[in-house]
Amino acid sequence: MKARVHVMLKDGVLDPQGEAIRHALGALGFDGVDGVRQGKVIELDLADGTSRETVEQMCEKLLANTVIESYAVEVG
Amino acid sequence: MKARVHVMLKDGVLDPQGEAIRHALGALGFDGVDGVRQGKVIELDLADGTSRETVEQMCEKLLANTVIESYAVEVG
Repeated sequence: MKARVHVMLKDGVLDPQGEAIRHALGALGFDGVDGVRQGKVIELDLADGTSRETVEQMCEKLLANTVIESYAVEVG
Repeated sequence: MKARVHVMLKDGVLDPQGEAIRHALGALGFDGVDGVRQGKVIELDLADGTSRETVEQMCEKLLANTVIESYAVEVG
């Protein structure tokens, strides 16, 4: 089975990488880009029957720094 | 309006970061993790009416290195 985890910086945490993308898009002539946030997506190929709770534990223990990052799990 | 872009390494391109995550999950006692791929997710806050084609141009020109990366655009 597959699971996908999105890890994004929490609101209020500065995102210099996203800001750099926003600036570069403007320099390339793309107007109307009001904000950019960059995060990570992690695709996991797991043994069948792995529970969503297990994937959430992976996030808490390794995949996300929950002080500054939030995560969302999609299973299946 | 919001758009979300996923950028993943193409199949066949080595992903050492994903491999490091897979190894670390095993060391933490999570069994059955057969594969991990890590990519980027970019959330764009755009002017209303921006077309999907415009976002795809942003991917082609800046957000993805299309030699080694594939991208997927979700609009709205």
